[in-house]
Amino acid sequence: MNEFDFIKQLREQVGQRKHPPRLIAGIGDDAAIIRPTSQRDLVVTTDLLIEGVDFHRYATPPSLLGHKALAVSLSDIAGMGARPCWAFLSFGMPRDTWNGPGRDQFVAGFLQLADTFGVTLAGGDISATEEKIVIDSIVLGEVAAGNAVLRSGARPGDQIYVTGNLGGAAAGLKLIELGARVESQSKPGVRPSPLGRGQGEGGEAIATGSSVQSEERSIQSLLLRQLSPSPRVGWGIVLGEERLATAMIDISDGLSSDLHHLCAESNAGALVEADAIPLDEDVKHLCGRRALDPLMLALHGGEDFELLFTVAPENVSRLPKRVDGVAISHIGEINDQTATVTIREKNHEWNLLPGGFEHFKE
Amino acid sequence: MNEFDFIKQLREQVGQRKHPPRLIAGIGDDAAIIRPTSQRDLVVTTDLLIEGVDFHRYATPPSLLGHKALAVSLSDIAGMGARPCWAFLSFGMPRDTWNGPGRDQFVAGFLQLADTFGVTLAGGDISATEEKIVIDSIVLGEVAAGNAVLRSGARPGDQIYVTGNLGGAAAGLKLIELGARVESQSKPGVRPSPLGRGQGEGGEAIATGSSVQSEERSIQSLLLRQLSPSPRVGWGIVLGEERLATAMIDISDGLSSDLHHLCAESNAGALVEADAIPLDEDVKHLCGRRALDPLMLALHGGEDFELLFTVAPENVSRLPKRVDGVAISHIGEINDQTATVTIREKNHEWNLLPGGFEHFKE
Repeated sequence: MNEFDFIKQLREQVGQRKHPPRLIAGIGDDAAIIRPTSQRDLVVTTDLLIEGVDFHRYATPPSLLGHKALAVSLSDIAGMGARPCWAFLSFGMPRDTWNGPGRDQFVAGFLQLADTFGVTLAGGDISATEEKIVIDSIVLGEVAAGNAVLRSGARPGDQIYVTGNLGGAAAGLKLIELGARVESQSKPGVRPSPLGRGQGEGGEAIATGSSVQSEERSIQSLLLRQLSPSPRVGWGIVLGEERLATAMIDISDGLSSDLHHLCAESNAGALVEADAIPLDEDVKHLCGRRALDPLMLALHGGEDFELLFTVAPENVSRLPKRVDGVAISHIGEINDQTATVTIREKNHEWNLLPGGFEHFKE
Repeated sequence: MNEFDFIKQLREQVGQRKHPPRLIAGIGDDAAIIRPTSQRDLVVTTDLLIEGVDFHRYATPPSLLGHKALAVSLSDIAGMGARPCWAFLSFGMPRDTWNGPGRDQFVAGFLQLADTFGVTLAGGDISATEEKIVIDSIVLGEVAAGNAVLRSGARPGDQIYVTGNLGGAAAGLKLIELGARVESQSKPGVRPSPLGRGQGEGGEAIATGSSVQSEERSIQSLLLRQLSPSPRVGWGIVLGEERLATAMIDISDGLSSDLHHLCAESNAGALVEADAIPLDEDVKHLCGRRALDPLMLALHGGEDFELLFTVAPENVSRLPKRVDGVAISHIGEINDQTATVTIREKNHEWNLLPGGFEHFKE
């Protein structure tokens, strides 16, 4: 199949889904045409995923790769307090992958997550590559004009919150590096899904049976935290619509790095309580047996794709307890120590330096 | 320099340029925020360029690569009859390129072309790669609501036009494959610029001096047609604003392929006059000495990034002769022979089959 036939097939596939009325033209022309809504701002993000750097093919089933490519962009839209509407997918793959089952599985994973959140694939581009898979995922969302939540709005006294729990994705990456692999998708209980288990409240409910079984379940859960992240779309929409957050960022680089970004943009600092940071239950479960420190993973591990946000004191009581089953944790407070993040652990305080992932270390 | 410092620097660089007032937030947050204009549709395109497939580093100066990455997307926006407004740039490069002069030259080439057309770089993403450069360029444009020109609007009797002339970019690619290289950018007369010479009206004005010099000038001109294309932004805006075109596509795959795309979408056919197809003067100049057939290059060579459009008979007299110095040629007529393109050359007619580039040949 050449790319023109593939695009034609994809267009029919997408056309059978429900189209939002404001997509005037989608796949199949030089560009897509979108009719914006008056009184709404448009929010645009793009995320590049490179094989060998951002993911490893040997550890990533194609459907999960498609899922993750979209999930990371949905997380950025959530981080703005906006609602995702339209997606664009550019990808390049070598000819053997194109001609095998991986191509359609990859696209199916992308479309399944898009359907979950009512997002329409509106366009993209395709190229061959010599060897590596490359993906660029673009998502456009909408938010009531002026309601987008920037990184720069935090003020001293604002309370700091984080959705879900942290460290699971980084632990999953370490497990992959140690040789762990996600089980077959056909096996019940570990089937990857857009809203996979072990998120929000951890995996306690399934940690039954023998110790070996329970360890294996935690491993699978953590692999899915890394390979099949759940963007906090619902929380993003609520925080934007209700004007609850003063500043927000999604945790892609790691809590320490992303809190520094937020503080730098807000010209403020933060004090974080170590005991309040929500640690992943599966990480805690495994940490005694493997060289994983749950707090370090939660602070510096990236790709959890949870939301980190600040709330003015007078609005704290208006915060919902959960959205889509995902709880939040109150982890600290914004202060006037510009660009300084302090962490308090029991009786001592220390400076939390950004320790997240960098593509180009100095 | 790590990517965070680079993004900070880029943000300051872009911030010093004139911002359109409707970019609420650009580089530096989870996503960009754009305030749409009421009564205008948004047009979105994305183009992926992969090293070794879509370009070769040894033949492509970084500044021209940045130029071309944006140019191909601007051409898509022009192909919709829209005005380009905002660009997003995702790229990955190996660490040695990142740490050398290529990174900044690449970005400078992109920004120089953006400035030419009043387009603002509003965001993007950066990744490392192990070896190859990959680029995804995304451009958003605007057009009066309902005025976007689709591929599907051509009707029997509509007249077919093309901007500029054809075959130069494909000839340039062949010359690269034969070992020709673009001369130093510091040499006057062949300095690549966003609106480089040899476009629109060919290179006659500079084809002086000895035969060897004139051949070398034609070679340089054709290399720039391939490496530094000029998107027909002005023509796109005029054709959209004046509602002159019934259908339009930009010639990226090749005239034969792109005319087939337009006819298939319009459920129509076309008759093209071979003698009317505007051939690149430099290709004609060189064709006697090298194995280049100007008509075949014009029909099947891709990447000219000219506009192919159709006009209802009653509107032909309203067409401007030139826009931004670029003329148009009347090359044929739409008929009711669905998905069939016939070409008439002197006394005989033949079926023109799509012969353009495919990434994944069957």
